[in-house]
Amino acid sequence: MQIPYYAVIFTSTRTEIDDNYAEMGAKMVALAKQQPGFLGVESARNEIGITVSYWESLEAISNWKQNLDHLDAQFLGRQKWYENYTVRIAKVEKEYSFGR
Amino acid sequence: MQIPYYAVIFTSTRTEIDDNYAEMGAKMVALAKQQPGFLGVESARNEIGITVSYWESLEAISNWKQNLDHLDAQFLGRQKWYENYTVRIAKVEKEYSFGR
Repeated sequence: MQIPYYAVIFTSTRTEIDDNYAEMGAKMVALAKQQPGFLGVESARNEIGITVSYWESLEAISNWKQNLDHLDAQFLGRQKWYENYTVRIAKVEKEYSFGR
Repeated sequence: MQIPYYAVIFTSTRTEIDDNYAEMGAKMVALAKQQPGFLGVESARNEIGITVSYWESLEAISNWKQNLDHLDAQFLGRQKWYENYTVRIAKVEKEYSFGR
């Protein structure tokens, strides 16, 4: 990815309600991948969940936030799936990697 | 946390070598908490691991990166614990939360 770009850091704790949470997650990832300016997404969960998605611009993030299917998912997330969450929007200024 | 601040997004995949990985992780979190400018840290791992630490400034991040005990841990990480990792340094410009 070409610096600078943006990261959306989504940290959450879940309720105990399952109710198609995984299916919705997979659907939202598939949908995000189709959005203009989408660069990638990574997720991990054990006690808490962290999902970081990467975007070309703030405009791309804003468009995704307002996507109608995504708005439905956000509503259901607040209604049943998440105990709490925080969204942080951050500009990636530096990046380096290690690999074998 | 007061906007703007910085996030270090550390994503990794592990080797199969355990060798005190969890102990070192706990030690580094305890040590990070003592550093000037440290604001918080959150971690999750299943297929991949994501650790996000939060800092007041780029200088605080740079000091932590160069901490001698942390340099030892970074060396061991490359030598045995990590198959690969990426570090991203990002300026948090916006933040919002939901909670029940």
